[in-house]
Amino acid sequence: MTTGEARAPATVITGAPIDGDELESDVVVVGAGLAGLTAARALSAAGASVIALEARDRVGGRTLSEPVGDGKVVDLGAAWIGPTQNRVAALARELGEPTFRTHTTGESLIELGGRVRRYSGTVPRLGVPVLIDVGQARWRLERLARRVSPAAPWAARGAARLDAQSFATWIARNVRTRAARDLLRIAGKTVWGMEPEDMSLLHVLFYLRAAGGLDALLDTEGGAQQDRFVRGSQALALRMAEQLGERVVTGAPVEAIEQRGDSVRVTSGAATVRARRAVVALAPALAARIHYVAPLPGPRDQLSQRMPLGSLTKCIAIYREPFWRPAGLSGEALSDVGPATITFDASPPDGSPGVLLGFVGGSEARTLGRVAVTERRRAVIDGFVRLFGSRAAAPERYVERDWSAEEWSRGGPTASFSPGGWSACGHALRAPVGRIHWAGTETATVWSGFMDGAVRSGERAAAEVVAAL
Amino acid sequence: MTTGEARAPATVITGAPIDGDELESDVVVVGAGLAGLTAARALSAAGASVIALEARDRVGGRTLSEPVGDGKVVDLGAAWIGPTQNRVAALARELGEPTFRTHTTGESLIELGGRVRRYSGTVPRLGVPVLIDVGQARWRLERLARRVSPAAPWAARGAARLDAQSFATWIARNVRTRAARDLLRIAGKTVWGMEPEDMSLLHVLFYLRAAGGLDALLDTEGGAQQDRFVRGSQALALRMAEQLGERVVTGAPVEAIEQRGDSVRVTSGAATVRARRAVVALAPALAARIHYVAPLPGPRDQLSQRMPLGSLTKCIAIYREPFWRPAGLSGEALSDVGPATITFDASPPDGSPGVLLGFVGGSEARTLGRVAVTERRRAVIDGFVRLFGSRAAAPERYVERDWSAEEWSRGGPTASFSPGGWSACGHALRAPVGRIHWAGTETATVWSGFMDGAVRSGERAAAEVVAAL
Repeated sequence: MTTGEARAPATVITGAPIDGDELESDVVVVGAGLAGLTAARALSAAGASVIALEARDRVGGRTLSEPVGDGKVVDLGAAWIGPTQNRVAALARELGEPTFRTHTTGESLIELGGRVRRYSGTVPRLGVPVLIDVGQARWRLERLARRVSPAAPWAARGAARLDAQSFATWIARNVRTRAARDLLRIAGKTVWGMEPEDMSLLHVLFYLRAAGGLDALLDTEGGAQQDRFVRGSQALALRMAEQLGERVVTGAPVEAIEQRGDSVRVTSGAATVRARRAVVALAPALAARIHYVAPLPGPRDQLSQRMPLGSLTKCIAIYREPFWRPAGLSGEALSDVGPATITFDASPPDGSPGVLLGFVGGSEARTLGRVAVTERRRAVIDGFVRLFGSRAAAPERYVERDWSAEEWSRGGPTASFSPGGWSACGHALRAPVGRIHWAGTETATVWSGFMDGAVRSGERAAAEVVAAL
Repeated sequence: MTTGEARAPATVITGAPIDGDELESDVVVVGAGLAGLTAARALSAAGASVIALEARDRVGGRTLSEPVGDGKVVDLGAAWIGPTQNRVAALARELGEPTFRTHTTGESLIELGGRVRRYSGTVPRLGVPVLIDVGQARWRLERLARRVSPAAPWAARGAARLDAQSFATWIARNVRTRAARDLLRIAGKTVWGMEPEDMSLLHVLFYLRAAGGLDALLDTEGGAQQDRFVRGSQALALRMAEQLGERVVTGAPVEAIEQRGDSVRVTSGAATVRARRAVVALAPALAARIHYVAPLPGPRDQLSQRMPLGSLTKCIAIYREPFWRPAGLSGEALSDVGPATITFDASPPDGSPGVLLGFVGGSEARTLGRVAVTERRRAVIDGFVRLFGSRAAAPERYVERDWSAEEWSRGGPTASFSPGGWSACGHALRAPVGRIHWAGTETATVWSGFMDGAVRSGERAAAEVVAAL
């Protein structure tokens, strides 16, 4: 249970209704997450007037930083930044938001088949057959992924066959050992909030390719989990919203988007905006909940029915100190028991307080999402105790965020195509519909699903609009 | 392109806004398709006051009957009724809506591998290896389906494994001949508007079981396509709406459902209703587009992201007479070329005019949904000519309905779970959320996806509400 959030600063109109007013701007942006704010900022920089409407009373979308005292924060949403995530890195530099290395010193833990073991480096000691199996599976996936252009996965050689099977089917056929299968399943729960059966193999390959490979996706050092933001990842959105000032309206859930001749009219609970173009920076499933006049074309609507958001709960236990560090542990762990199947040390840069982060994803998130918070907390902390010992039993504070329960997110960390989805509807993912342009990390071709992808999607949508204005 | 629709009778308030009014009733029903109207009627019969809100300016949901002169109609949506569909049959009897046999006299056609052949009975002459292959595939599917209880598919023996694979994966493993694979794919395009890769194998088994088997599902005589309604299937909804009178409000798209203490408040463009209970009788993907206060639980929302509606366009060519009958043809045909991959004689009971109905489903519906109507018409009619000869080239009229483009349907004939969907979210399909109950053919355990399932779901939801009032 979370209490209080890092709010948008005072210069942002937080939910103040502008009754009766019809605002005018060149562009209206729907959604003030990283994608929407990046688009709004880029459009503004290009000389266009812009208004961004956000349903929540805060900006940041799937980034959300929770204060833990002394000006420090923990990230309840997207947290990390890694090499080659150049657009979010450039944004952070511009905004003056520093990063620091994820703590990785010490041995990691793996709980598999009822036993907890320590290991060093990125590969657990699982015996030669398992290591060979993991190695060949990675090699096959990477080789398949090379066929896939992230801009048009449906055009890959053999795309229909790759899209026709679930990732689970591929695993069952290509991975022989139980342990290697478990590792892939565990990874998927955190990377996508999905079980392997929920996803198109083609989507997995698209995602690998967009990230630059499995190592880039899964590694801490040298990979997507390498660094964090000192002031939390939501700071990026908060800084952009500060710069945009009253051009960002929060507490303004968009109800309708009406295209009329040479303009688009966007109605929200708080304000109505008439503009020449709109950028909708929401996950497709949420974008479909807006009422469009004229109605969206069938293929675009059906896309939104075929790209569900993952099921992911971030669970954070805050201790006086990171007690696992003196014990020679990094805080990283994998577990086939869970419910948190992957953990990280998510302490602030100075290591105080000690923060253990557990990802509860896929089936565990769905099962635990139906029980009381006390029961969920107990299950998560019990898991931490099995991994990190009895000192994990009594955190000073426990914070969690079930992204599927968030009304304006409805899942996390990203949306993934079901089998057949790319073939059926992929072409509609970025295609503008009249004066409506689509942003959001799901539309990115580089680091789709990540903050970097969100930033890139905002830049791409802004460029489309600038060219069209 | 369709012009004009069979409208609801004058006693129904068609889109008349009741500004400022807050209506009160025991129950509010959202959606005046077969499910919603059946629920409203059953509730009314049980002594509850009820108001049904419908987004369209007509009732009937995915049933829609188009006049073709002389009081005759063709069905652009659900059309048939067959043995064991007892609840819709009972409703039709009560409402005095007669049925008649689908025309099947004559030989059928099959276009496969570039060749058009005639055949008699239900099984095309495709050579012994293909017939054996089709037979063993049917036998395996039926055997697997026996494990699945339609009320709880996720609890079947081996359910996780059945749900983890697409129907395409099962076909690739279990069906050896090209022709048999094509036949299954063609059937799926019409039965679900889906390609085999879009669907969970578990969902296919659920659906077979809910229908009572493959023969029940696929056959004309003795199966789901056996009979039609003389005045069209929409007549059922029109008669029910007549009986309910001004309790049915059309032109009233529901925007919000708010649960407050012991009541539920439903806001639409035309009227606001306060009631003790609500029945939402929409496909899950559409139900999610309403704004709920409090927000729906995560699992229920994620369900709505994992059960896409199919892609289906019904294409109807109307000729002066059914010229195929004197040529010894039934009007039924299968084609692996398409775009209409299955055809039927859909002429009125007296055989005048002659009506050829073609189903364009799955990938063909998506591809053709993106081209101009003239191009689509040409492609469909070209296919009719290949099958039925040159007299098919010049229909007096061509009517079509792309259900994915219908704003308040967004696909058809039904919604199907993607792989993993039943396991992830199946338990949320019928579970009431506070004072909100769920109806719609997708929630049925008998004849799910059919008009009979819609009627059953309305009866079940009404019974839930009566027990709770």
